[in-house]
Amino acid sequence: MEKNITSQTLSRLPIYFNYLVSLPEERKKGNISATAIAEALGLNDVQVRKDLASVSCGGRPKVGYMTSELIGDIGKFLGFENHDKVVVAGMGNFGRAMLEYNGFEAYGFDIICGFDCNKERVGKNVGGKPVRHIDELEDFCLTNDIRIGIITVPETAAQEVCDRMAEAGIKYILNFAAVHINAPKGVAVHNENISLTLAMLARCGA
Amino acid sequence: MEKNITSQTLSRLPIYFNYLVSLPEERKKGNISATAIAEALGLNDVQVRKDLASVSCGGRPKVGYMTSELIGDIGKFLGFENHDKVVVAGMGNFGRAMLEYNGFEAYGFDIICGFDCNKERVGKNVGGKPVRHIDELEDFCLTNDIRIGIITVPETAAQEVCDRMAEAGIKYILNFAAVHINAPKGVAVHNENISLTLAMLARCGA
Repeated sequence: MEKNITSQTLSRLPIYFNYLVSLPEERKKGNISATAIAEALGLNDVQVRKDLASVSCGGRPKVGYMTSELIGDIGKFLGFENHDKVVVAGMGNFGRAMLEYNGFEAYGFDIICGFDCNKERVGKNVGGKPVRHIDELEDFCLTNDIRIGIITVPETAAQEVCDRMAEAGIKYILNFAAVHINAPKGVAVHNENISLTLAMLARCGA
Repeated sequence: MEKNITSQTLSRLPIYFNYLVSLPEERKKGNISATAIAEALGLNDVQVRKDLASVSCGGRPKVGYMTSELIGDIGKFLGFENHDKVVVAGMGNFGRAMLEYNGFEAYGFDIICGFDCNKERVGKNVGGKPVRHIDELEDFCLTNDIRIGIITVPETAAQEVCDRMAEAGIKYILNFAAVHINAPKGVAVHNENISLTLAMLARCGA
């Protein structure tokens, strides 16, 4: 295994990981070759072979990798074997979708709780996770050592919730509200913009 | 206005656009300087000044740009003044959130209709938009010349819906199902992976 990995390789590792994790369970029990991965993802197979060799020593000529082992190796390299607890603020359709979304687990994220200020939503379970009142946010996050928060509140409330998350010790915030929010010092915010993703796809071909 | 624009500038234009569009309505009626934009986004102000000058000739020394004009110029450059009709397949929480999301309009996307196979969902309105049966997808898309589709169905159905969208003449597909789907020839698919975005933010600082 090489220790020096290029930023290009690093940027592709999550793509391989994502693809492998999304395979049907039967295929995860078998082997997979760099060539097969390259074909499925439309990438150059020499490049894929090199990328995989830089993070896993499980590849065998003509056999390929044990899929589950390769998932483990890439995940370990990327730090996905960590388990990080995540909270979601805003229990509209978007927030409820986050609590029900079953793609987080493979990346080591446990969405453990939702928050809302609407009494009709508080106290219910969504996707098996409890919804608490937003006023419990600070206490809950500090007590449970939460470092990651997802914001799915209306635009008008997004900056305030961001500030409250920061006060509660949260260090990483993924914002889905359709408004740019600013990170307080020491906190990283990613403003996810679905319209922009769509625009880059449909208008710029990216 | 320069006609040759670097790919770096091109990648930043949507960030400016997104920021400007997200400003409160009062601020959109006033002026804004490159310096103010640079500060708000944590970018170099010389770079921002150059970027803006390459797509808008509305900037004045010490005054800046008329915000609304600058939004128009950047949007025009990026093709956001187009109006593209978009359909959403899958009316779970995620799909309903898409129909209700009000960030698409500024980018020139009209989400006009949702589709589902569940009889309890079909015929209802979500976010003021009708939900039709998935079996109407092909006819509806061909009749209305739909080029863009969003997939929010369960993982097991995502590839099939993708194939059906392609048959219905859709050219650009944004996939939110937590599974990698392959684009039929002539169709561009963007597999949006929320877990990956979160992982890049919280584990790789990107």
